[in-house]
Amino acid sequence: MDVTLVAIQGNGQAVEVAADQVRVVGWVENPDQYPVAKKGHTFEYLREVAHLRVRTNTFGAIARVRHCLAMAVHRFFHERGFYWVHTPIITGSDCEGAGQMFRVSTLDLVNLPRQGGRAGVQPSAPSKEHGDKLAAAQDSGAQAKDASVTARGHAQGHGAASGSGPIDWSQDFFGKETHLTVSGQLNVETYCCALSRVYTFGPTFRAENSNTSRHLAEFWMIEPEVAFCDLHGDSVLAEEMLKYLFDAVLTERADDMAFFNERIEKGVIDRLKGIIEKPFRRLTYTEAIEILEKAIAGGRKFEFPVKWGADLQSEHERYLTEEHFKQPVVLMNYPKGIKAFYMRVNDEGMGTDRETVAAMDVLVPGIGEIIGGSQREERLDVLDRRLDEMGLNKADYWWYRDLRRYGTVPHSGFGLGFERLIQFVTGMQNIRDVIPFPRAPKQAEF
Amino acid sequence: MDVTLVAIQGNGQAVEVAADQVRVVGWVENPDQYPVAKKGHTFEYLREVAHLRVRTNTFGAIARVRHCLAMAVHRFFHERGFYWVHTPIITGSDCEGAGQMFRVSTLDLVNLPRQGGRAGVQPSAPSKEHGDKLAAAQDSGAQAKDASVTARGHAQGHGAASGSGPIDWSQDFFGKETHLTVSGQLNVETYCCALSRVYTFGPTFRAENSNTSRHLAEFWMIEPEVAFCDLHGDSVLAEEMLKYLFDAVLTERADDMAFFNERIEKGVIDRLKGIIEKPFRRLTYTEAIEILEKAIAGGRKFEFPVKWGADLQSEHERYLTEEHFKQPVVLMNYPKGIKAFYMRVNDEGMGTDRETVAAMDVLVPGIGEIIGGSQREERLDVLDRRLDEMGLNKADYWWYRDLRRYGTVPHSGFGLGFERLIQFVTGMQNIRDVIPFPRAPKQAEF
Repeated sequence: MDVTLVAIQGNGQAVEVAADQVRVVGWVENPDQYPVAKKGHTFEYLREVAHLRVRTNTFGAIARVRHCLAMAVHRFFHERGFYWVHTPIITGSDCEGAGQMFRVSTLDLVNLPRQGGRAGVQPSAPSKEHGDKLAAAQDSGAQAKDASVTARGHAQGHGAASGSGPIDWSQDFFGKETHLTVSGQLNVETYCCALSRVYTFGPTFRAENSNTSRHLAEFWMIEPEVAFCDLHGDSVLAEEMLKYLFDAVLTERADDMAFFNERIEKGVIDRLKGIIEKPFRRLTYTEAIEILEKAIAGGRKFEFPVKWGADLQSEHERYLTEEHFKQPVVLMNYPKGIKAFYMRVNDEGMGTDRETVAAMDVLVPGIGEIIGGSQREERLDVLDRRLDEMGLNKADYWWYRDLRRYGTVPHSGFGLGFERLIQFVTGMQNIRDVIPFPRAPKQAEF
Repeated sequence: MDVTLVAIQGNGQAVEVAADQVRVVGWVENPDQYPVAKKGHTFEYLREVAHLRVRTNTFGAIARVRHCLAMAVHRFFHERGFYWVHTPIITGSDCEGAGQMFRVSTLDLVNLPRQGGRAGVQPSAPSKEHGDKLAAAQDSGAQAKDASVTARGHAQGHGAASGSGPIDWSQDFFGKETHLTVSGQLNVETYCCALSRVYTFGPTFRAENSNTSRHLAEFWMIEPEVAFCDLHGDSVLAEEMLKYLFDAVLTERADDMAFFNERIEKGVIDRLKGIIEKPFRRLTYTEAIEILEKAIAGGRKFEFPVKWGADLQSEHERYLTEEHFKQPVVLMNYPKGIKAFYMRVNDEGMGTDRETVAAMDVLVPGIGEIIGGSQREERLDVLDRRLDEMGLNKADYWWYRDLRRYGTVPHSGFGLGFERLIQFVTGMQNIRDVIPFPRAPKQAEF
């Protein structure tokens, strides 16, 4: 098109396009069959045409906001001297919680190699307990907690094969059984113990059979890790990061945020501004239990019971952040029994049945948990005791333990699920609508 | 430590640390067993302690340069109005070249579900030809070409199972057979056709059994895609990007680059500076063949023959960029027969046996091919003819073809393997040393 922009009066536009000539580059031959023709479509329908939905106003805005947030994540960390570390996607570690992992393999399924002729070789199938504990062990991002609840036993590739030995993984591409990572945390700790301030930002995977609006099988996660940082410093970093990201998107994508505010969730802009302005509320898990117990005594009903030592349910978290405090809340120092092996045991209460670990969850109104983190156990003897307590095999953690053997340092980190963040910022209800091509049970199109 | 910095004279240091008090946070209990004690270690040895090698000067420098380049990639594109798009890692597409892909599955290998009782259901195993052609079809990054040569047939999950039907993928997590992506290109084209300027930057995978210093099973790739951009514009973008990245690393990591220049590859800084200063040399594939034929006539020996219509080997590419031109070279317009289905057929020569496509390779001294790209075929009828010619199934490409049916636009893009870039910038010889935790055949530690 050879065009001129002409300033005009009235009809709500500032300028209009005056074309002398129009050259059509690509016609839509059958406009009536165009899958995203100019009319209202449901988000459900648009998921079926994910290759075209980004041409609509909503999905164009999501793509721009997603980009803006991703750039702001990198900028935030870069400005503070962090290094982006590409932790591996394919993992051969036994220590990531096999229960919900995808297997990666090039083995010929029709002629699976077996450990033949070696009688007495027993399959070492990880127990369900092992899987569940390790799933709970992942504090990396908002999906972790649910993961432990919906643990989905999948093929372990071991066990009683009819008449033949266990599968011979030494013949697989990597010479061992491998999976897709559920978190880069353990890996990135190795870089933290050398470069001090590091973070991951990459895809992570959960093979949970959860067909919900809050779960993806493939999602992107941000995991910073900071040396010489305690749990309080960790919570400050999380607070500063969230505020920085909200400020970036309000400033840089004011146009798209106005759209979300008008069309997707009224008040989303004020919600973000309100969060930026006020300090987050910090309290202990124990204090949170007391608040919840008081609420129950006052007549508030919850589906799940509240009891010191049990994990908080989403309804409890949302009561705290949405009804009681009406602002973001950082809960700290959880009972040891419901948290991962690598979280630092607090001195306070040590040796009693009220032992806690230096874990934190950041709760925000409308979403609940958006960040989970902890100070890591830097003392080798305490770490080993925890591994033993949880029935984990120390040999599997040889390199993780080495970090405590060779110049250990206190360090802390957290995980933020990137899609949960985008949901929170845009008000989009279904997580499948904030990632270009969502992967979920029975869904891997495009 | 409570310390004072004291300016000192002599001994090569500007300041020294004067400590009043030293508090040891974490001892190394057995310094003589410390795996990265202060002495020279081989890179081979350090790969075995990849959790600690980043504490050494070389690997610390690599980590910082890697971060610097990654930030510069994002900044380069962001400043030019590109959007970062997270294309999927797990792909259910049949159109990515199954020959060298990793399968992703949660099926129980011990009790694989079979399509039972449905006699007459024939396995639809992709032919080797299909796999090879599609491997060649990926111009996304420097590993693509080699991939087609070393194609490794892996389990297809179909075929003559003894006494039972083919595997019932409908029972797998995604309801179909899925793999790890080898390129985000086809996916990101969908976003290009909506947002105009987009790019991917994420992990990609090749299940090639290549135990070389140039191949990884898991590597990071950068793939921009630009609407209303022809092959020339594509080559300009590639040139500008490389120069921007080299300039960034020389400016921002001058300290680490001085280290590489002194300890890893003498002259690496001057090499990068030389590239920044001069325009890249552009010539056609046909001109390159003429130069190579002239060299052979003049007595230059090559292992592989040179012939119009055949792919150039690494030795030919390196002759052109290292010996003949002594600078980066962009080769353009390759014979159709050796290139992918999606590359735009050039008008010139159309209908003759000298048909070419709008493909390009960027060759640099010391590495050879570092970037591969093309203008994409935007004409549906020509694209369909190409799919037919290559024996590909149009139905598998329904969404890719939709981009040409509904408002098609000319567009172009390229792929840059991030680790090849880091090798080039640092002079590191082995690609396994420029990624934190390398994945290669029989290697998935940590």
